[in-house]
Amino acid sequence: MSDIRTISIVGMGPGWEEGMTFEAERALNDSDVIIGYTVYLDLLKDKYGDKEMLSTPMKQEVDRCRMCFDEALKGKKVAMVCSGDAGIYGMASIMYEISEEYDGNWNLVVIPGITAATSGAAILGAPLNHDFVVISLSDLLTPLETIEKRLRAAAEGDFAIAIYNPSSKKRHDYLQKACGILMEVIEEERPCGYVKNIGREGMSYKVCNIKELANEEVDMFTTVFIGNSQTRIIDGKLVTPRGYRK
Amino acid sequence: MSDIRTISIVGMGPGWEEGMTFEAERALNDSDVIIGYTVYLDLLKDKYGDKEMLSTPMKQEVDRCRMCFDEALKGKKVAMVCSGDAGIYGMASIMYEISEEYDGNWNLVVIPGITAATSGAAILGAPLNHDFVVISLSDLLTPLETIEKRLRAAAEGDFAIAIYNPSSKKRHDYLQKACGILMEVIEEERPCGYVKNIGREGMSYKVCNIKELANEEVDMFTTVFIGNSQTRIIDGKLVTPRGYRK
Repeated sequence: MSDIRTISIVGMGPGWEEGMTFEAERALNDSDVIIGYTVYLDLLKDKYGDKEMLSTPMKQEVDRCRMCFDEALKGKKVAMVCSGDAGIYGMASIMYEISEEYDGNWNLVVIPGITAATSGAAILGAPLNHDFVVISLSDLLTPLETIEKRLRAAAEGDFAIAIYNPSSKKRHDYLQKACGILMEVIEEERPCGYVKNIGREGMSYKVCNIKELANEEVDMFTTVFIGNSQTRIIDGKLVTPRGYRK
Repeated sequence: MSDIRTISIVGMGPGWEEGMTFEAERALNDSDVIIGYTVYLDLLKDKYGDKEMLSTPMKQEVDRCRMCFDEALKGKKVAMVCSGDAGIYGMASIMYEISEEYDGNWNLVVIPGITAATSGAAILGAPLNHDFVVISLSDLLTPLETIEKRLRAAAEGDFAIAIYNPSSKKRHDYLQKACGILMEVIEEERPCGYVKNIGREGMSYKVCNIKELANEEVDMFTTVFIGNSQTRIIDGKLVTPRGYRK
């Protein structure tokens, strides 16, 4: 029986250094090589400059995963890093998929991190404090019809909603379209908000209603929040009650 | 103009000490008094035994929040602790609501933590690695019809699903009922799983299908996961692909 080889898939959290968990820090400290997208590696260079760091360009995620297995087969302790959480739009699932290409006993350890839904919600107040959905508007890997179906279901179910990847250069009007779909069910005054550049330079947030949201300028570093039917604005923050005070 | 008074609402993460963030630890270190449910305070006594700790019994969450404001008005630095994340079924929203009862300038700082959807997903593999919903089956604060509507919407939208509070002594058959509603749309073989006692003694997990799930014994310390139409079981783990390999 072959040795068990461990690879850690580490969620780095929201960008600010203190948002990382102790567990994530330990996994990085214990590794020989840290593999990830270059932007995330740059954030780690100050603290983990003694580690070997390897990357592949953007959109070469599959190759980046294979690199993890190839390096582990050389006997190195590998940590793959993801922004936010490792398992929410992160690399955990593709790492499991790629593991099927490689013989041997693989132990993939997913180390959770704070995802933008949680860190962005904390900045805006408490918009996800009841049942909620998380939807990405990126149609790079998901058919547009599936995204639209999910937006409709989210509105029908009266969920609070967190939207990832609300816009990019090629998809500049996707948030506007998404708001249009949601407004087939949701009233125009529904409290909403967004956070730009969570944990990065230039972080900012805004609270508005969904009609206004449709015309806001957002980018791929923005996380958008839409309240449920109970969501209120309290002292400038977006608050979805759990119902304790009814 | 009155002073600005700050209260921190701190997500402690999944229960194991290393799952806390540096930011959460700093907020606890900086506090004079830590307020929370007794079970959570017990977890903190080893490390923060020098702090004043205050609590109210279970189901007296509103009083516990008022206690935070009352103590802050005495000039103390207050940290309110929540298990998991402060803003996902946590105390953040009710703290904002209670702040309206108190005069003065309140600065409520929500410090995010790893919620059970994320920590449980990490243990099961990567079940939430695409669009997902989080639903609580507790009808203490939410009408049962709303919960059932949301389950239907989640299935219609082909979301991966994380279920909190799947059962309790009074609601012993709620998970079974929920699976029944989901199976109006979802096939019986749909991959599912659950994690019991995340980060606590006796942690265990199981991967199964939704028909089997309906008959599993779960309790209020169990987090349940239901895959979307693309979810697969790989090497005993629950994996929802993002679509990189299509």
